[in-house]
Amino acid sequence: MADGDPEAIDSLTLLRGVNETAPFNRWAGFVVSAAGDGTAELRLPWRAELGQYSGFLHAAVVAGMIDTACGFAAATVIGQVLAAQCSVNFLSPAVGDEFVARAVVVKAGKRQVFTTAELFAERDGPSKLVATGTTILAVPA
Amino acid sequence: MADGDPEAIDSLTLLRGVNETAPFNRWAGFVVSAAGDGTAELRLPWRAELGQYSGFLHAAVVAGMIDTACGFAAATVIGQVLAAQCSVNFLSPAVGDEFVARAVVVKAGKRQVFTTAELFAERDGPSKLVATGTTILAVPA
Amino acid sequence: MADGDPEAIDSLTLLRGVNETAPFNRWAGFVVSAAGDGTAELRLPWRAELGQYSGFLHAAVVAGMIDTACGFAAATVIGQVLAAQCSVNFLSPAVGDEFVARAVVVKAGKRQVFTTAELFAERDGPSKLVATGTTILAVPA
Amino acid sequence: MADGDPEAIDSLTLLRGVNETAPFNRWAGFVVSAAGDGTAELRLPWRAELGQYSGFLHAAVVAGMIDTACGFAAATVIGQVLAAQCSVNFLSPAVGDEFVARAVVVKAGKRQVFTTAELFAERDGPSKLVATGTTILAVPA
Repeated sequence: MADGDPEAIDSLTLLRGVNETAPFNRWAGFVVSAAGDGTAELRLPWRAELGQYSGFLHAAVVAGMIDTACGFAAATVIGQVLAAQCSVNFLSPAVGDEFVARAVVVKAGKRQVFTTAELFAERDGPSKLVATGTTILAVPA
Repeated sequence: MADGDPEAIDSLTLLRGVNETAPFNRWAGFVVSAAGDGTAELRLPWRAELGQYSGFLHAAVVAGMIDTACGFAAATVIGQVLAAQCSVNFLSPAVGDEFVARAVVVKAGKRQVFTTAELFAERDGPSKLVATGTTILAVPA
Repeated sequence: MADGDPEAIDSLTLLRGVNETAPFNRWAGFVVSAAGDGTAELRLPWRAELGQYSGFLHAAVVAGMIDTACGFAAATVIGQVLAAQCSVNFLSPAVGDEFVARAVVVKAGKRQVFTTAELFAERDGPSKLVATGTTILAVPA
Repeated sequence: MADGDPEAIDSLTLLRGVNETAPFNRWAGFVVSAAGDGTAELRLPWRAELGQYSGFLHAAVVAGMIDTACGFAAATVIGQVLAAQCSVNFLSPAVGDEFVARAVVVKAGKRQVFTTAELFAERDGPSKLVATGTTILAVPA
């Protein structure tokens, strides 16, 4: 996203505000690191409280990052939307120092917005794809 | 589940222990209220920290309750399993004083366990179905 | 469904007509055996042309029966709808003399109808659950 | 895929043979146009018998092309696999002279192979994305 694109800056600023008003997002530590033109990126530093019993990132947080990033990507195109369906594939144990979800709008229709996202775990070396997902968002009447 | 069923009591005790060892489950406040014979029930009292920006239960927690209840239902039949896929339908805004997820094993195969769950919101009057979901769990080799 | 329910008879007659106008449904041999009050039942006698390489009912036909039964169940409540998403779990090899899909509306909202279906294989003895699925249908604006 | 890659040629030849042994694939007219290295491409010329009541490609055939292309992509990496779950998003009415499904393996694990696919409709001008899907395939024990 070009630094000088005022529309993208608006989406990012707007979604950072939405993110701050959501108590769960604040507790978890979601950071909106990019948003605009049908895409959004969400970051989350690891801490033990986010884990399941084996110390991996909990499925709730994996799904929550994918659903949230997808909703934010849709919001850059359509404005207010509400998730109708979210499907997550857990590819590998989600272990890392930081997690990054990247979402993109696949199709923005009149009634539904179709989005897809990938979740990466970052540690030393290259980031690892640990989950993928799709979310369908309903456009209010 | 009959009070005198020793097998079911074991599953419930075991899964309450697993639930206690998971930091996210403890933070969220998940309570395993029933488990045995391919079923599990999970309860969660509402508090503001679990909400998204409109004050509904966050999609992460909706998905997390469904995924966890499904995993616990599968564990009563198969033992240790790992979620491979979770799909959630968000039917209505999740607003309530308490949430209850009820999961059941649909098919326990050699390689996968198929489960389904419903999430109800409880407030005054009858409980309301707010989400449904399915989870596929992989059986370790 | 009571024989004397005129509304249900109308749905069934209507959907049998729709089923007849769909070339694929006619080729496959779909029979609408019940419809009304948010439910629909679809039957299909087995023949070799419907099979995949091992002689099981092809995934296309499994998904097609689930999607079609879900759409017909939704149509009894809402009228014209269009599938937005369909998810199918293949539980067991689909082997039988006849297949029966039973679908039910879980939630009929203003913008989406959520449905679920089961597919049974019938042969000698009790019928066997071979697949489950959910379909989300969009309500036209 | 390089013309001189003998492994890829083997996958393509092998999968064309599998495709020919499946009665439904032959009836529908599936053509395996590419396969190798965790990818597969399936083509299908339109004809009226493949349609639903509005003359769009039937959801059964949309799902069947996605499921089949995903299975063939997985087979290039793992050998024999069996679909456990397939999820399809219907983005736009599937109208075209020819349809092309392109599938790719996202993760090949010991117990499951995760795949994703896109379905394009071709007519005059550029091809149009009409559906997306994911399939999880079980690796036999």
